[in-house]
Amino acid sequence: MEQDQGPQQNSTAPQFTLELTKPDGRAMTLYGCGGPVRVDGPVPSPFADPLHANPHLRWHPLRGEWITYAAYRQGRTFLPPPEYNPLAMCVDPANPTELPAGDYAIAVFENRFPSLSAEAHDPPPALVETAPGNGLCEVVVFTTDPKASLGALPLPQIELLLQVWGDRTVRAARRGDLQYVLPFENRGAEVGVTLHHPHGQIYAYPFVPPVPARMQQTQQAFYEQHRKSLLGDMVQKHMKAGENMVYQGQHAVAFVPACARYPYEVWVSTIEPVAYFHELSDAQRADLARALKTVLLKYDGLWQRPFPYLMAWYQAPLDGKPHPEAFLHAEFSPPYRSRDRLKYLAGTELGAGMFAMDVLPEEKARELQQVQVTLD
Amino acid sequence: MEQDQGPQQNSTAPQFTLELTKPDGRAMTLYGCGGPVRVDGPVPSPFADPLHANPHLRWHPLRGEWITYAAYRQGRTFLPPPEYNPLAMCVDPANPTELPAGDYAIAVFENRFPSLSAEAHDPPPALVETAPGNGLCEVVVFTTDPKASLGALPLPQIELLLQVWGDRTVRAARRGDLQYVLPFENRGAEVGVTLHHPHGQIYAYPFVPPVPARMQQTQQAFYEQHRKSLLGDMVQKHMKAGENMVYQGQHAVAFVPACARYPYEVWVSTIEPVAYFHELSDAQRADLARALKTVLLKYDGLWQRPFPYLMAWYQAPLDGKPHPEAFLHAEFSPPYRSRDRLKYLAGTELGAGMFAMDVLPEEKARELQQVQVTLD
Repeated sequence: MEQDQGPQQNSTAPQFTLELTKPDGRAMTLYGCGGPVRVDGPVPSPFADPLHANPHLRWHPLRGEWITYAAYRQGRTFLPPPEYNPLAMCVDPANPTELPAGDYAIAVFENRFPSLSAEAHDPPPALVETAPGNGLCEVVVFTTDPKASLGALPLPQIELLLQVWGDRTVRAARRGDLQYVLPFENRGAEVGVTLHHPHGQIYAYPFVPPVPARMQQTQQAFYEQHRKSLLGDMVQKHMKAGENMVYQGQHAVAFVPACARYPYEVWVSTIEPVAYFHELSDAQRADLARALKTVLLKYDGLWQRPFPYLMAWYQAPLDGKPHPEAFLHAEFSPPYRSRDRLKYLAGTELGAGMFAMDVLPEEKARELQQVQVTLD
Repeated sequence: MEQDQGPQQNSTAPQFTLELTKPDGRAMTLYGCGGPVRVDGPVPSPFADPLHANPHLRWHPLRGEWITYAAYRQGRTFLPPPEYNPLAMCVDPANPTELPAGDYAIAVFENRFPSLSAEAHDPPPALVETAPGNGLCEVVVFTTDPKASLGALPLPQIELLLQVWGDRTVRAARRGDLQYVLPFENRGAEVGVTLHHPHGQIYAYPFVPPVPARMQQTQQAFYEQHRKSLLGDMVQKHMKAGENMVYQGQHAVAFVPACARYPYEVWVSTIEPVAYFHELSDAQRADLARALKTVLLKYDGLWQRPFPYLMAWYQAPLDGKPHPEAFLHAEFSPPYRSRDRLKYLAGTELGAGMFAMDVLPEEKARELQQVQVTLD
C-alpha cells in the first residue's frame, strides 16, 4: 500500500506531506492521514523577525556531560493572552498562531526557542570547554483538535505519528552531524506544561546523550555476550511471567518493568527488536500504536482525569553502524505515586542517582490492568 | 582545643555526644554544641512497635543501576494532625515525637521508614536480579528550634553539623559493608518537603551510586593525567576569573559553576582538596561553615522568603583506599529559575540526561552577589 512519493526513499515513510517555510524562516512539515494535505491561506508564525538561535554547549568536567545554554529564551517579548493557543489553526491573520488552516493531521515545525539549533555558531568562551549548540528542536502537533489527547486519537493517526517520528529521524540522520533523535511528550502542569493542545517535541543531539548512551552500553555488552537483545530478553521474561503486562499483542507489548523507577512507569515496545521507527513493519507499527493507545487510555481511565507523564522514545544512535543490540521502545515516567501524591525527585534520586520506590511495580501493574479500555 | 573523648578516635569528631535507643529499637545520637548533652525524661518515639525494615534492591539491566523498594512505607498507620511536628522536643509523653526534651544542639536517628536498612535480608525474587536493601537512612535534626533554618544557625552549630556528618561517615565506614555516605537536605514544598523543622538526611549505600560514581571516574582520570584535583582545578579557575564567586574565604569558597545545570546552582567547597568531612582541619571547617552560611543567607535574602533547594554533599567512597582525586563539596540544586517560575525536569533532562538552561550561570551569580548578608 506504500507509495514512493515525496522526499522519502524508504517504504515506511508517511505518504502525504507538504513542506512549508514560516515567515520567520522556520521549516514546517504537514502530514496527511490517509489523504493529501491542503492548506488554506498563508503559513502563519506568531513571530515576524527571523529566528537567530545561537545556543551553546558547556562541558561539565565532573559529570562528563554537555549542558546546553540558550539564554535568548529569557528575552521572549511575545506575551500572549491566557486563552491564546499557539497550536490552534490560524483563523485570523492579525492574530497568527503556528498552524495554518487546512486539512492535515500532524504538523512538525522548528521550535521558536530551541535549546539546540542548526544555526549555532561561535560559542562564547567560558571557564569550561564550550561548543556550538548544534542540533534540532522540533514541535510535533499530534492533532489539529485542541481538546483531544494522544490516546484519544484514532489508531491510524497514532500509526501516522510513529511514521512521522521515523521521518524526522531519517531527516536528522541525513544531515550527517547529528547523533541521536529523541521524540518525547511532556504532559500536564505537574511536569511543567500548561499548553494542553496535544503535542510533543523532538530533540536531535550532536552526541548520544547520557541516558541513551548508558542504555546502548549495557545493551551492547549484553549482545556481545549473549548474541541477543537485552530488552528483548526482558520483554520475553515479562511476557512469560505475565503479572506486569499492560498490553500484549501479536507484535507489541506494554508492561510495568520489574525495575520501575516511577510508580506508574510503563514501557511500550515491539516484541522483536527494531532499531529505528522507520524500520517498523506495517504490522509492528499497527500493533505498537495499539499498545501505545491502550497505555494512554488506561492512564486517563485510572483516576478518570488526564494523567500527566513524561513519555520518551529510545532508538539506536545515528552513527551509520548496524545496531543489533538496540531496541526501539518508549518509557513513561509519570509524576504521581498515588491519586493525590506526587513523587518528588530529591536527595537520593537527583543527588545520588539511586531511585527509591515505596510501592512494588507488580502492585501498580495490577491497578493498570484493572482499568478497562476499548480500542476503536 | 579538641579532646579525645567518646567513641571517636579521630581528632575532629564532635566532642559531646550521647547514645540512646528509642523504644522501637532505633538508634539515636545527640550532639552538644560546646557543652555536654543533657536529656530530661525518657527517649520518645511516635512508634511503639519494633522496626522491621526489609527494603530490597532490584537491578535495572538497561540503565545498569540499582533501585530500592521499601514497600512497607505505604503501610504507615501513623496519621498525625497537621500541626504535629515529629521533630519537636517531646513535652507530652502521651503525644511522643522523635526528640527527647533536654539540652543538645543536633540529633541523628534512624529513619522509621528507611529506603535502605541494616536489617535488610532475603530479597524476594523478581524478573530482574535482586539484593538486600542494605544500608542506612538517618534523619539529622539541625536544631531544636522548629522555626530556625540551617542558614540562620550560629556558625559554631554549622561547624558542629560538619563534624556530625563526618562522625556519621566514620561510623558507616566502620561497618565495613557500606560504600558511600551522602548527607543531603531537601528543603521546601517545591521539592516535596512539608515538614519545616530544619533537618536533613543521610543515606549510606552498599555501593557507590551512579552520580558520585561518575564524578569519581572523571576525577580519577584527571588525577592520573595531571596529578592534581579536577574540582581543585575548577575552583582555581573560578577564583581567578572571579565573576561567578559567591563567597571567597581563606580556606573555602562558594560559586555558581560555569557548567551549572540549575539556574541558581551553587557549589561550596574548601580550596584545597579534602576527601572526607572528618579530614577537614579546624580552620577549613570554620571557613566552610562561613561559606555555607553565606550561600544559605543569600538564597533566603534573594526573594526575602525561604529558598527551596536540594543540597547534596559529595565525599570519597568508603573503600579504604586513598582518594587523592576526591574533593569534598556541596552542590545546591534549587528548583526555581526565577522568582515565580520553577524549572521542571522533563524530556531532555530526565529522558536524555542533557540539561537545558535558559539563563547563563554568570547572570545568576551576579544576582546572588548582589544579596548582602552579615555573618555572626
